[in-house]
Amino acid sequence: MGDVKLLGTWPSPFSYRVIWALKLKGIPYEYIEQDLLNKSPLLLQSNPVHKKIPVLIHGGKPIAESIIILQYIEEKWPQNPLLPSDPHEKAVARFWVKFADEKSLSIWKVFRFSGEEQEKGLKESLEMLEIIEEHAPGLGQKKFFGGDKIGMVDLALGLVAHWMGAIEEVTGVQIMEAGKFPRLEAWMKNFKEDPVIKENLPELKDMLAALKRRREIHLASK
Amino acid sequence: MGDVKLLGTWPSPFSYRVIWALKLKGIPYEYIEQDLLNKSPLLLQSNPVHKKIPVLIHGGKPIAESIIILQYIEEKWPQNPLLPSDPHEKAVARFWVKFADEKSLSIWKVFRFSGEEQEKGLKESLEMLEIIEEHAPGLGQKKFFGGDKIGMVDLALGLVAHWMGAIEEVTGVQIMEAGKFPRLEAWMKNFKEDPVIKENLPELKDMLAALKRRREIHLASK
Repeated sequence: MGDVKLLGTWPSPFSYRVIWALKLKGIPYEYIEQDLLNKSPLLLQSNPVHKKIPVLIHGGKPIAESIIILQYIEEKWPQNPLLPSDPHEKAVARFWVKFADEKSLSIWKVFRFSGEEQEKGLKESLEMLEIIEEHAPGLGQKKFFGGDKIGMVDLALGLVAHWMGAIEEVTGVQIMEAGKFPRLEAWMKNFKEDPVIKENLPELKDMLAALKRRREIHLASK
Repeated sequence: MGDVKLLGTWPSPFSYRVIWALKLKGIPYEYIEQDLLNKSPLLLQSNPVHKKIPVLIHGGKPIAESIIILQYIEEKWPQNPLLPSDPHEKAVARFWVKFADEKSLSIWKVFRFSGEEQEKGLKESLEMLEIIEEHAPGLGQKKFFGGDKIGMVDLALGLVAHWMGAIEEVTGVQIMEAGKFPRLEAWMKNFKEDPVIKENLPELKDMLAALKRRREIHLASK
């Protein structure tokens, strides 16, 4: 199997995507916290293109980008599959993973910005949530996106399940009005109650403090 | 195998990604040209989230997003593989497919816009080309990104190989200075000389006319 290292930052939802996948598969790993204000030679050398976390290093070979890492983990360790085996169902899951990965960035706009840019982020976030609520297959019928077990779409949307609420609290901007997205709300509850996820979620209190500090830096550096 | 239909528009590089993959794999298909100014019920029903081309419909089941379609084709028809079989090499290829898919959008900014927004697109396009020239594995050593045969990274970068030149001509903006990207230039030549690609590339003359019309529409609708 070789040794597995994960370069991440706390409490990044992108790091957590990888943490959850490794935990769900039962793969031991060494977590190496990174300082993004003072990037380590290991990070720069492992991800010279984007210089971002997370990076998975397996047997000395680095892989960057959380979604690419999830696919690698899925292929390398097939136990407790994160994607359906049927090719069409797999394509549908990948479609929603890509959607989550690209569109959930709008939630960061609410977090990082103020004024007009934040308004734009809020509008895009609502569009994203509405599309998921209306179109995501299986949502509202089963516990998770892919069925009764957590899969890659759930991991890709972890930001919505746990970080979004903290961002609402830190910014004072309400993104998800209670009762407006009943199927997503039920999924968020199921997701956070799953034993593996529950054990591997950042504490809300610590997250709030960290996000508050980071938001101040963002707003001050504009 | 079931019937294969492709909803596309001429001459979209996103449609061509799928056309090339199907041709390389030897899969017969029916191409159905779409009018994006008057979207068909079939397109709206097949891709209700993005309402965009390309869409592959296989045995009545639709799949949207060119990169997701390529992965589906790869899994459904494993002959003439488009991805390496080694999991780490596959992850590296997927990293570059994602990079190409996301970053080559900057070339469209040069096409669609003028003034400041176009300048920004040009800057981003150059950054993209520089990163590929410097970091893409295998480039300059072998004929294609993955080795001696065309793979998914090549298909994802088809826009750079063939459309970019036409966009330079239509806009009068030079993106790729001759001699500055020797490895990419060699790759572009190899790519367009491959027999399957060569037979399935839009004619430059027709492309120029189509892109010119479309640019006028974009600039007028701002």
